[in-house]
Amino acid sequence: MSGAGHFARLDSAGFPPFEPGSVWLVGAGPGAPGLISVLAYHALGKADVIVYDALVGEGVLAWATPDAELVHAGKRGGKPSPKQADISLRLIEWARSGRRVLRLKGGDPFMFGRGGEECQALRRAGVPFRIVPGITSGIGGLGYAGIPVTHRATNHAVIFLTGHDDTGAVPQSVDWAAIATAAPVIVMFMAVKHLASIAERLIAAGRSPADPLAIVSNATLPDQSVAVTTLGEAAALGAREDVPTPAIVVCGPVVDYRHVLGWFGAAERENTIG
Amino acid sequence: MSGAGHFARLDSAGFPPFEPGSVWLVGAGPGAPGLISVLAYHALGKADVIVYDALVGEGVLAWATPDAELVHAGKRGGKPSPKQADISLRLIEWARSGRRVLRLKGGDPFMFGRGGEECQALRRAGVPFRIVPGITSGIGGLGYAGIPVTHRATNHAVIFLTGHDDTGAVPQSVDWAAIATAAPVIVMFMAVKHLASIAERLIAAGRSPADPLAIVSNATLPDQSVAVTTLGEAAALGAREDVPTPAIVVCGPVVDYRHVLGWFGAAERENTIG
Repeated sequence: MSGAGHFARLDSAGFPPFEPGSVWLVGAGPGAPGLISVLAYHALGKADVIVYDALVGEGVLAWATPDAELVHAGKRGGKPSPKQADISLRLIEWARSGRRVLRLKGGDPFMFGRGGEECQALRRAGVPFRIVPGITSGIGGLGYAGIPVTHRATNHAVIFLTGHDDTGAVPQSVDWAAIATAAPVIVMFMAVKHLASIAERLIAAGRSPADPLAIVSNATLPDQSVAVTTLGEAAALGAREDVPTPAIVVCGPVVDYRHVLGWFGAAERENTIG
Repeated sequence: MSGAGHFARLDSAGFPPFEPGSVWLVGAGPGAPGLISVLAYHALGKADVIVYDALVGEGVLAWATPDAELVHAGKRGGKPSPKQADISLRLIEWARSGRRVLRLKGGDPFMFGRGGEECQALRRAGVPFRIVPGITSGIGGLGYAGIPVTHRATNHAVIFLTGHDDTGAVPQSVDWAAIATAAPVIVMFMAVKHLASIAERLIAAGRSPADPLAIVSNATLPDQSVAVTTLGEAAALGAREDVPTPAIVVCGPVVDYRHVLGWFGAAERENTIG
Protein backbone atom coordinates (compact mmCIF):
# COMPACT_ATOMS: atom_id res chain seq x y z
CA MET A 1 0.00 0.00 0.00
CA SER A 2 1.31 3.39 -0.94
CA GLY A 3 2.45 5.35 2.09
CA ALA A 4 2.54 2.44 4.56
CA GLY A 5 5.48 2.93 6.88
CA HIS A 6 6.17 6.30 5.32
CA PHE A 7 6.95 7.88 8.68
CA ALA A 8 8.65 4.75 10.05
CA ARG A 9 11.49 5.07 7.61
CA LEU A 10 12.49 8.37 9.23
CA ASP A 11 13.47 6.42 12.36
CA SER A 12 16.58 5.30 10.48
CA ALA A 13 17.06 8.39 8.34
CA GLY A 14 20.14 9.66 10.17
CA PHE A 15 18.92 12.83 11.82
CA PRO A 16 21.48 15.12 13.49
CA PRO A 17 22.36 13.74 16.93
CA PHE A 18 20.89 15.58 19.93
CA GLU A 19 24.01 15.56 22.08
CA PRO A 20 23.78 15.41 25.88
CA GLY A 21 24.75 18.76 27.33
CA SER A 22 23.41 20.73 24.38
CA VAL A 23 20.36 22.96 23.90
CA TRP A 24 18.13 22.99 20.84
CA LEU A 25 16.02 26.11 20.39
CA VAL A 26 13.04 24.87 18.47
CA GLY A 27 10.12 26.66 16.88
CA ALA A 28 6.83 24.92 17.65
CA GLY A 29 4.93 26.69 14.87
CA PRO A 30 1.52 28.37 15.13
CA GLY A 31 -0.21 25.65 17.16
CA ALA A 32 -1.33 22.67 15.10
CA PRO A 33 1.08 19.81 15.82
CA GLY A 34 1.25 18.83 12.15
CA LEU A 35 3.00 22.11 11.44
CA ILE A 36 6.16 21.42 13.45
CA SER A 37 9.15 20.40 11.37
CA VAL A 38 10.25 16.78 11.16
CA LEU A 39 13.51 17.93 12.75
CA ALA A 40 11.54 19.39 15.67
CA TYR A 41 9.59 16.12 15.94
CA HIS A 42 12.89 14.24 16.04
CA ALA A 43 14.03 16.49 18.89
CA LEU A 44 10.80 15.81 20.82
CA GLY A 45 11.72 12.15 20.78
CA LYS A 46 15.24 12.65 22.11
CA ALA A 47 14.97 15.48 24.65
CA ASP A 48 15.48 14.90 28.38
CA VAL A 49 14.00 18.27 29.36
CA ILE A 50 11.51 20.31 27.35
CA VAL A 51 11.15 23.94 28.42
CA TYR A 52 8.10 25.36 26.70
CA ASP A 53 6.31 28.69 26.40
CA ALA A 54 2.63 29.45 26.88
CA LEU A 55 2.14 29.71 23.11
CA VAL A 56 3.25 26.13 22.40
CA GLY A 57 0.30 23.98 21.34
CA GLU A 58 -0.78 21.13 23.62
CA GLY A 59 -0.81 18.81 20.64
CA VAL A 60 2.86 19.51 20.07
CA LEU A 61 3.74 18.64 23.67
CA ALA A 62 1.73 15.42 23.38
CA TRP A 63 4.26 14.28 20.80
CA ALA A 64 7.17 14.41 23.26
CA THR A 65 8.68 11.17 24.45
CA PRO A 66 7.04 10.13 27.75
CA ASP A 67 10.51 10.08 29.32
CA ALA A 68 10.98 13.82 28.93
CA GLU A 69 10.55 16.25 31.79
CA LEU A 70 8.17 19.03 30.73
CA VAL A 71 8.81 22.46 32.24
CA HIS A 72 6.51 25.40 31.66
CA ALA A 73 8.34 28.71 31.23
CA GLY A 74 5.44 30.62 29.85
CA LYS A 75 5.16 34.32 29.50
CA ARG A 76 1.72 35.61 28.83
CA GLY A 77 0.41 39.17 28.97
CA GLY A 78 -0.64 40.20 32.45
CA LYS A 79 0.43 37.11 34.36
CA PRO A 80 3.53 36.70 36.52
CA SER A 81 6.16 34.68 34.73
CA PRO A 82 9.76 33.58 35.07
CA LYS A 83 12.27 36.27 34.24
CA GLN A 84 14.20 35.89 31.00
CA ALA A 85 17.50 35.71 32.87
CA ASP A 86 16.14 32.89 35.05
CA ILE A 87 15.08 30.88 32.02
CA SER A 88 18.48 31.26 30.38
CA LEU A 89 20.20 30.29 33.62
CA ARG A 90 18.15 27.13 33.99
CA LEU A 91 18.83 26.13 30.37
CA ILE A 92 22.54 26.41 31.13
CA GLU A 93 22.25 24.40 34.36
CA TRP A 94 20.32 21.58 32.72
CA ALA A 95 22.81 21.42 29.85
CA ARG A 96 25.76 21.37 32.25
CA SER A 97 24.17 18.47 34.09
CA GLY A 98 24.42 16.51 30.83
CA ARG A 99 20.80 16.72 29.69
CA ARG A 100 19.51 17.18 26.19
CA VAL A 101 17.57 20.44 26.59
CA LEU A 102 14.81 21.32 24.17
CA ARG A 103 13.75 24.96 24.39
CA LEU A 104 10.39 25.04 22.65
CA LYS A 105 8.93 28.38 21.56
CA GLY A 106 5.71 29.23 19.77
CA GLY A 107 6.18 30.12 16.10
CA ASP A 108 9.83 30.71 15.25
CA PRO A 109 12.46 31.28 17.97
CA PHE A 110 13.81 34.41 16.24
CA MET A 111 10.49 36.05 15.28
CA PHE A 112 9.71 38.13 18.38
CA GLY A 113 10.64 35.03 20.38
CA ARG A 114 13.69 36.27 22.28
CA GLY A 115 15.63 33.26 21.04
CA GLY A 116 18.58 35.53 20.34
CA GLU A 117 18.93 36.48 23.98
CA GLU A 118 18.87 32.87 25.13
CA CYS A 119 21.46 31.91 22.53
CA GLN A 120 23.70 34.75 23.65
CA ALA A 121 23.54 33.45 27.23
CA LEU A 122 24.27 29.90 26.06
CA ARG A 123 27.25 31.10 24.00
CA ARG A 124 28.66 33.03 26.96
CA ALA A 125 28.33 29.91 29.08
CA GLY A 126 29.98 27.75 26.43
CA VAL A 127 26.91 25.55 26.01
CA PRO A 128 26.53 24.20 22.46
CA PHE A 129 23.20 24.91 20.78
CA ARG A 130 21.39 24.69 17.49
CA ILE A 131 18.39 26.51 16.05
CA VAL A 132 15.43 24.64 14.60
CA PRO A 133 13.28 27.27 12.87
CA GLY A 134 9.51 27.13 13.02
CA ILE A 135 6.54 28.36 11.02
CA THR A 136 5.57 31.78 12.31
CA SER A 137 1.89 32.34 13.00
CA GLY A 138 2.25 35.63 11.14
CA ILE A 139 2.54 33.66 7.91
CA GLY A 140 1.22 30.15 8.54
CA GLY A 141 -1.54 31.22 10.90
CA LEU A 142 -2.83 33.70 8.36
CA GLY A 143 -2.66 31.01 5.68
CA TYR A 144 -5.12 28.95 7.72
CA ALA A 145 -7.44 31.97 7.66
CA GLY A 146 -7.20 32.17 3.86
CA ILE A 147 -5.15 35.37 4.06
CA PRO A 148 -1.98 35.32 1.97
CA VAL A 149 0.73 37.43 3.55
CA THR A 150 1.70 38.58 0.05
CA HIS A 151 -0.10 38.56 -3.27
CA ARG A 152 1.34 39.79 -6.55
CA ALA A 153 -1.73 41.95 -7.14
CA THR A 154 -1.51 43.77 -3.80
CA ASN A 155 1.97 43.89 -2.24
CA HIS A 156 5.65 43.35 -2.91
CA ALA A 157 6.46 44.07 0.72
CA VAL A 158 5.07 43.22 4.15
CA ILE A 159 5.91 44.48 7.63
CA PHE A 160 5.91 42.37 10.78
CA LEU A 161 5.88 44.15 14.11
CA THR A 162 5.19 43.48 17.74
CA GLY A 163 2.46 45.43 19.52
CA HIS A 164 4.24 45.63 22.83
CA ASP A 165 7.78 45.78 24.11
CA ASP A 166 9.13 44.04 27.19
CA THR A 167 7.59 46.62 29.50
CA GLY A 168 4.17 45.77 28.03
CA ALA A 169 3.75 49.17 26.37
CA VAL A 170 3.47 50.03 22.69
CA PRO A 171 7.09 49.98 21.45
CA GLN A 172 8.53 53.52 21.45
CA SER A 173 11.24 52.62 18.97
CA VAL A 174 8.75 51.88 16.22
CA ASP A 175 8.45 54.69 13.66
CA TRP A 176 4.68 54.52 13.24
CA ALA A 177 4.60 57.23 10.59
CA ALA A 178 7.00 55.32 8.35
CA ILE A 179 5.32 51.98 9.13
CA ALA A 180 1.96 53.39 8.08
CA THR A 181 3.04 53.92 4.48
CA ALA A 182 5.99 51.56 3.95
CA ALA A 183 4.03 48.49 2.87
CA PRO A 184 0.43 47.67 1.97
CA VAL A 185 0.35 44.83 4.50
CA ILE A 186 1.18 45.03 8.21
CA VAL A 187 1.19 41.91 10.37
CA MET A 188 1.10 42.53 14.11
CA PHE A 189 2.04 40.17 16.90
CA MET A 190 0.76 40.61 20.45
CA ALA A 191 -1.17 43.65 19.30
CA VAL A 192 -4.73 43.05 20.55
CA LYS A 193 -4.23 44.78 23.88
CA HIS A 194 -2.95 48.01 22.33
CA LEU A 195 -4.87 47.77 19.05
CA ALA A 196 -6.81 50.99 19.65
CA SER A 197 -3.64 52.96 20.23
CA ILE A 198 -1.81 51.37 17.30
CA ALA A 199 -4.72 51.93 14.91
CA GLU A 200 -4.90 55.59 15.93
CA ARG A 201 -1.19 56.08 15.27
CA LEU A 202 -1.37 54.45 11.85
CA ILE A 203 -4.40 56.52 10.81
CA ALA A 204 -2.81 59.71 12.13
CA ALA A 205 0.20 58.92 9.92
CA GLY A 206 -1.93 58.66 6.82
CA ARG A 207 -3.10 55.06 6.70
CA SER A 208 -6.67 54.76 5.46
CA PRO A 209 -9.27 53.97 8.14
CA ALA A 210 -11.01 51.91 5.45
CA ASP A 211 -8.10 49.46 5.26
CA PRO A 212 -9.36 45.92 5.90
CA LEU A 213 -8.14 44.39 9.14
CA ALA A 214 -8.45 40.86 10.47
CA ILE A 215 -7.79 39.39 13.89
CA VAL A 216 -7.01 35.68 13.66
CA SER A 217 -7.30 33.98 17.05
CA ASN A 218 -6.03 30.49 17.90
CA ALA A 219 -4.74 30.18 14.37
CA THR A 220 -4.48 26.65 12.92
CA LEU A 221 -6.34 25.11 15.88
CA PRO A 222 -9.88 23.68 15.82
CA ASP A 223 -11.16 26.77 17.65
CA GLN A 224 -9.56 29.21 15.21
CA SER A 225 -11.70 32.30 14.77
CA VAL A 226 -11.38 35.29 12.47
CA ALA A 227 -12.83 38.75 13.14
CA VAL A 228 -12.82 41.04 10.12
CA THR A 229 -13.19 44.78 10.38
CA THR A 230 -11.37 47.92 9.23
CA LEU A 231 -8.46 49.82 10.70
CA GLY A 232 -10.88 52.60 11.66
CA GLU A 233 -13.15 50.23 13.53
CA ALA A 234 -10.29 48.23 15.02
CA ALA A 235 -10.03 50.37 18.10
CA ALA A 236 -13.48 49.33 19.27
CA LEU A 237 -12.96 45.69 18.34
CA GLY A 238 -9.57 45.50 20.02
CA ALA A 239 -11.01 46.80 23.25
CA ARG A 240 -13.65 44.09 23.42
CA GLU A 241 -13.01 41.57 26.16
CA ASP A 242 -14.09 38.66 24.01
CA VAL A 243 -11.34 38.70 21.38
CA PRO A 244 -9.62 35.37 22.08
CA THR A 245 -5.85 35.37 22.31
CA PRO A 246 -3.26 34.51 21.18
CA ALA A 247 -4.13 36.40 18.04
CA ILE A 248 -2.42 37.73 14.94
CA VAL A 249 -3.61 41.04 13.52
CA VAL A 250 -3.23 41.77 9.81
CA CYS A 251 -4.04 45.05 8.10
CA GLY A 252 -4.15 45.50 4.34
CA PRO A 253 -5.83 44.44 1.11
CA VAL A 254 -4.82 40.77 1.44
CA VAL A 255 -7.54 40.39 4.08
CA ASP A 256 -10.14 40.50 1.29
CA TYR A 257 -8.78 37.32 -0.32
CA ARG A 258 -10.24 35.45 2.59
CA HIS A 259 -13.58 35.16 0.77
CA VAL A 260 -11.89 33.27 -2.07
CA LEU A 261 -9.00 31.53 -0.35
CA GLY A 262 -10.57 30.46 2.93
CA TRP A 263 -10.33 26.66 3.16
CA PHE A 264 -10.21 25.77 6.88
CA GLY A 265 -13.81 24.73 7.42
CA ALA A 266 -15.80 22.49 9.73
CA ALA A 267 -14.46 19.25 8.22
CA GLU A 268 -10.85 20.38 8.49
CA ARG A 269 -11.31 21.48 12.11
CA GLU A 270 -12.31 17.98 13.13
CA ASN A 271 -8.75 16.84 12.66
CA THR A 272 -6.54 18.07 15.49
CA ILE A 273 -3.21 17.42 13.75
CA GLY A 274 -3.44 20.23 11.22
CA MET B 1 15.38 2.75 24.12
CA SER B 2 14.04 6.26 24.28
CA GLY B 3 12.85 7.48 20.92
CA ALA B 4 12.78 4.08 19.17
CA GLY B 5 9.86 4.05 16.78
CA HIS B 6 9.20 7.70 17.53
CA PHE B 7 8.44 8.47 13.89
CA ALA B 8 6.69 5.14 13.27
CA ARG B 9 3.86 6.08 15.58
CA LEU B 10 2.91 8.93 13.25
CA ASP B 11 1.90 6.33 10.62
CA SER B 12 -1.23 5.72 12.70
CA ALA B 13 -1.66 9.23 14.07
CA GLY B 14 -4.72 10.11 12.02
CA PHE B 15 -3.44 12.82 9.69
CA PRO B 16 -5.95 14.70 7.55
CA PRO B 17 -6.87 12.58 4.51
CA PHE B 18 -5.38 13.65 1.17
CA GLU B 19 -8.51 13.21 -0.92
CA PRO B 20 -8.29 12.18 -4.59
CA GLY B 21 -9.20 15.15 -6.77
CA SER B 22 -7.81 17.71 -4.35
CA VAL B 23 -4.73 19.94 -4.38
CA TRP B 24 -2.49 20.61 -1.40
CA LEU B 25 -0.31 23.72 -1.68
CA VAL B 26 2.65 22.89 0.49
CA GLY B 27 5.62 24.95 1.63
CA ALA B 28 8.87 23.01 1.29
CA GLY B 29 10.81 25.32 3.58
CA PRO B 30 14.24 26.83 2.97
CA GLY B 31 15.93 23.70 1.60
CA ALA B 32 17.00 21.23 4.30
CA PRO B 33 14.53 18.33 4.24
CA GLY B 34 14.33 18.22 8.04
CA LEU B 35 12.65 21.61 7.98
CA ILE B 36 9.48 20.54 6.18
CA SER B 37 6.47 20.09 8.43
CA VAL B 38 5.31 16.64 9.46
CA LEU B 39 2.06 17.45 7.63
CA ALA B 40 4.06 18.15 4.46
CA TYR B 41 5.93 14.89 4.95
CA HIS B 42 2.60 13.09 5.29
CA ALA B 43 1.50 14.65 1.98
CA LEU B 44 4.71 13.50 0.27
CA GLY B 45 3.72 9.95 1.14
CA LYS B 46 0.21 10.22 -0.27
CA ALA B 47 0.52 12.38 -3.40
CA ASP B 48 -0.01 10.97 -6.88
CA VAL B 49 1.54 14.00 -8.61
CA ILE B 50 4.07 16.39 -7.12
CA VAL B 51 4.50 19.66 -8.99
CA TYR B 52 7.59 21.38 -7.64
CA ASP B 53 9.44 24.66 -8.10
CA ALA B 54 13.14 25.21 -8.72
CA LEU B 55 13.64 26.32 -5.12
CA VAL B 56 12.45 23.02 -3.61
CA GLY B 57 15.38 21.12 -2.09
CA GLU B 58 16.39 17.79 -3.65
CA GLY B 59 16.40 16.21 -0.23
CA VAL B 60 12.73 17.09 0.16
CA LEU B 61 11.81 15.46 -3.14
CA ALA B 62 13.77 12.35 -2.13
CA TRP B 63 11.23 11.87 0.65
CA ALA B 64 8.31 11.50 -1.78
CA THR B 65 6.73 8.11 -2.19
CA PRO B 66 8.35 6.30 -5.16
CA ASP B 67 4.87 5.95 -6.70
CA ALA B 68 4.48 9.71 -7.16
CA GLU B 69 4.95 11.41 -10.51
CA LEU B 70 7.38 14.31 -10.10
CA VAL B 71 6.80 17.31 -12.35
CA HIS B 72 9.16 20.26 -12.45
CA ALA B 73 7.41 23.60 -12.81
CA GLY B 74 10.38 25.72 -11.93
CA LYS B 75 10.66 29.40 -12.38
CA ARG B 76 14.15 30.76 -12.02
CA GLY B 77 15.51 34.16 -12.99
CA GLY B 78 16.58 34.35 -16.63
CA LYS B 79 15.45 30.92 -17.75
CA PRO B 80 12.34 30.09 -19.76
CA SER B 81 9.69 28.58 -17.56
CA PRO B 82 6.06 27.50 -17.64
CA LYS B 83 3.62 30.38 -17.46
CA GLN B 84 1.68 30.77 -14.23
CA ALA B 85 -1.64 30.22 -16.03
CA ASP B 86 -0.34 26.97 -17.51
CA ILE B 87 0.70 25.67 -14.09
CA SER B 88 -2.70 26.48 -12.58
CA LEU B 89 -4.45 24.82 -15.54
CA ARG B 90 -2.45 21.64 -15.15
CA LEU B 91 -3.14 21.51 -11.41
CA ILE B 92 -6.84 21.67 -12.21
CA GLU B 93 -6.60 18.98 -14.90
CA TRP B 94 -4.73 16.57 -12.65
CA ALA B 95 -7.21 17.12 -9.84
CA ARG B 96 -10.17 16.58 -12.16
CA SER B 97 -8.63 13.30 -13.28
CA GLY B 98 -8.90 12.16 -9.66
CA ARG B 99 -5.30 12.53 -8.60
CA ARG B 100 -3.97 13.76 -5.30
CA VAL B 101 -1.99 16.79 -6.43
CA LEU B 102 0.80 18.16 -4.25
CA ARG B 103 1.93 21.62 -5.31
CA LEU B 104 5.30 22.04 -3.63
CA LYS B 105 6.82 25.50 -3.32
CA GLY B 106 10.07 26.69 -1.76
CA GLY B 107 9.62 28.39 1.61
CA ASP B 108 5.98 29.24 2.29
CA PRO B 109 3.36 29.24 -0.49
CA PHE B 110 2.07 32.70 0.47
CA MET B 111 5.43 34.44 1.02
CA PHE B 112 6.24 35.76 -2.45
CA GLY B 113 5.26 32.30 -3.69
CA ARG B 114 2.23 33.14 -5.83
CA GLY B 115 0.24 30.53 -3.97
CA GLY B 116 -2.66 32.95 -3.79
CA GLU B 117 -3.02 33.05 -7.55
CA GLU B 118 -3.02 29.28 -7.82
CA CYS B 119 -5.63 28.98 -5.09
CA GLN B 120 -7.82 31.53 -6.84
CA ALA B 121 -7.70 29.44 -10.03
CA LEU B 122 -8.50 26.27 -8.09
CA ARG B 123 -11.43 27.96 -6.37
CA ARG B 124 -12.83 29.21 -9.68
CA ALA B 125 -12.56 25.68 -11.03
CA GLY B 126 -14.25 24.21 -7.97
CA VAL B 127 -11.21 22.11 -7.04
CA PRO B 128 -10.85 21.59 -3.28
CA PHE B 129 -7.50 22.61 -1.80
CA ARG B 130 -5.70 23.11 1.45
CA ILE B 131 -2.66 25.14 2.45
CA VAL B 132 0.27 23.61 4.30
CA PRO B 133 2.48 26.51 5.38
CA GLY B 134 6.25 26.26 5.28
CA ILE B 135 9.23 27.87 6.95
CA THR B 136 10.28 30.88 4.92
CA SER B 137 13.97 31.18 4.13
CA GLY B 138 13.68 34.83 5.18
CA ILE B 139 13.35 33.65 8.77
CA GLY B 140 14.60 30.06 8.96
CA GLY B 141 17.38 30.51 6.42
CA LEU B 142 18.72 33.48 8.34
CA GLY B 143 18.50 31.46 11.55
CA TYR B 144 20.92 28.95 10.05
CA ALA B 145 23.30 31.86 9.42
CA GLY B 146 23.08 32.92 13.07
CA ILE B 147 21.09 36.03 12.15
CA PRO B 148 17.91 36.54 14.20
CA VAL B 149 15.25 38.30 12.17
CA THR B 150 14.30 40.22 15.31
CA HIS B 151 16.12 40.94 18.55
CA ARG B 152 14.71 42.89 21.45
CA ALA B 153 17.82 45.08 21.54
CA THR B 154 17.62 46.10 17.88
CA ASN B 155 14.14 45.93 16.33
CA HIS B 156 10.45 45.61 17.10
CA ALA B 157 9.66 45.50 13.38
CA VAL B 158 11.01 43.87 10.24
CA ILE B 159 10.19 44.32 6.56
CA PHE B 160 10.14 41.55 3.98
CA LEU B 161 10.20 42.53 0.33
CA THR B 162 10.89 41.01 -3.05
CA GLY B 163 13.65 42.45 -5.21
CA HIS B 164 11.87 41.92 -8.49
CA ASP B 165 8.33 41.85 -9.77
CA ASP B 166 6.92 39.49 -12.38
CA THR B 167 8.54 41.44 -15.22
CA GLY B 168 11.92 40.87 -13.59
CA ALA B 169 12.41 44.56 -12.75
CA VAL B 170 12.72 46.23 -9.35
CA PRO B 171 9.09 46.54 -8.13
CA GLN B 172 7.74 49.99 -8.97
CA SER B 173 5.01 49.74 -6.37
CA VAL B 174 7.49 49.61 -3.49
CA ASP B 175 7.86 52.91 -1.64
CA TRP B 176 11.63 52.77 -1.18
CA ALA B 177 11.75 56.01 0.77
CA ALA B 178 9.33 54.71 3.38
CA ILE B 179 10.93 51.25 3.39
CA ALA B 180 14.31 52.80 4.10
CA THR B 181 13.27 54.17 7.47
CA ALA B 182 10.27 52.06 8.53
CA ALA B 183 12.18 49.27 10.29
CA PRO B 184 15.76 48.61 11.37
CA VAL B 185 15.77 45.26 9.55
CA ILE B 186 14.94 44.62 5.88
CA VAL B 187 14.87 41.08 4.50
CA MET B 188 14.96 40.84 0.72
CA PHE B 189 13.96 37.92 -1.46
CA MET B 190 15.25 37.52 -5.04
CA ALA B 191 17.24 40.70 -4.58
CA VAL B 192 20.77 39.75 -5.64
CA LYS B 193 20.32 40.69 -9.30
CA HIS B 194 19.11 44.21 -8.53
CA LEU B 195 21.01 44.69 -5.29
CA ALA B 196 23.03 47.63 -6.61
CA SER B 197 19.89 49.48 -7.62
CA ILE B 198 18.03 48.64 -4.40
CA ALA B 199 20.96 49.68 -2.19
CA GLU B 200 21.21 52.99 -4.02
CA ARG B 201 17.52 53.70 -3.51
CA LEU B 202 17.67 52.90 0.20
CA ILE B 203 20.74 55.09 0.74
CA ALA B 204 19.20 57.93 -1.28
CA ALA B 205 16.19 57.73 1.05
CA GLY B 206 18.32 58.13 4.13
CA ARG B 207 19.43 54.64 5.08
CA SER B 208 22.99 54.57 6.37
CA PRO B 209 25.56 53.13 3.93
CA ALA B 210 27.28 51.70 7.03
CA ASP B 211 24.32 49.42 7.77
CA PRO B 212 25.50 45.81 7.96
CA LEU B 213 24.24 43.60 5.14
CA ALA B 214 24.49 39.86 4.66
CA ILE B 215 23.78 37.65 1.66
CA VAL B 216 22.93 34.12 2.73
CA SER B 217 23.17 31.67 -0.18
CA ASN B 218 21.83 28.11 -0.22
CA ALA B 219 20.55 28.64 3.30
CA THR B 220 20.23 25.54 5.53
CA LEU B 221 22.04 23.33 2.99
CA PRO B 222 25.56 21.88 3.39
CA ASP B 223 26.88 24.45 0.88
CA GLN B 224 25.34 27.42 2.71
CA SER B 225 27.55 30.49 2.43
CA VAL B 226 27.29 33.93 3.99
CA ALA B 227 28.80 37.10 2.56
CA VAL B 228 28.86 40.03 4.97
CA THR B 229 29.30 43.61 3.86
CA THR B 230 27.55 46.95 4.26
CA LEU B 231 24.68 48.52 2.39
CA GLY B 232 27.13 50.96 0.83
CA GLU B 233 29.35 48.18 -0.46
CA ALA B 234 26.45 45.95 -1.44
CA ALA B 235 26.22 47.35 -4.93
CA ALA B 236 29.65 46.02 -5.83
CA LEU B 237 29.07 42.69 -4.11
CA GLY B 238 25.69 42.16 -5.72
CA ALA B 239 27.15 42.68 -9.15
CA ARG B 240 29.71 39.93 -8.68
CA GLU B 241 29.03 36.86 -10.78
CA ASP B 242 30.07 34.51 -8.00
CA VAL B 243 27.31 35.19 -5.46
CA PRO B 244 25.51 31.84 -5.38
CA THR B 245 21.73 31.85 -5.61
CA PRO B 246 19.13 31.34 -4.33
CA ALA B 247 20.05 33.87 -1.70
CA ILE B 248 18.39 35.92 1.01
CA VAL B 249 19.64 39.43 1.65
CA VAL B 250 19.28 40.99 5.08
CA CYS B 251 20.16 44.56 6.01
CA GLY B 252 20.29 45.86 9.57
CA PRO B 253 21.95 45.53 12.96
CA VAL B 254 20.86 41.90 13.46
CA VAL B 255 23.58 40.89 10.99
CA ASP B 256 26.19 41.56 13.68
CA TYR B 257 24.75 38.87 15.99
CA ARG B 258 26.18 36.35 13.57
CA HIS B 259 29.50 36.42 15.42
CA VAL B 260 27.81 35.27 18.62
CA LEU B 261 24.85 33.24 17.33
CA GLY B 262 26.41 31.41 14.38
CA TRP B 263 26.10 27.68 15.03
CA PHE B 264 25.94 25.95 11.61
CA GLY B 265 29.53 24.76 11.32
CA ALA B 266 31.49 22.02 9.59
CA ALA B 267 30.08 19.24 11.80
CA GLU B 268 26.47 20.34 11.27
CA ARG B 269 26.94 20.56 7.50
CA GLU B 270 27.89 16.90 7.31
CA ASN B 271 24.30 15.99 8.01
CA THR B 272 22.12 16.57 4.98
CA ILE B 273 18.77 16.40 6.81
CA GLY B 274 19.09 19.72 8.61
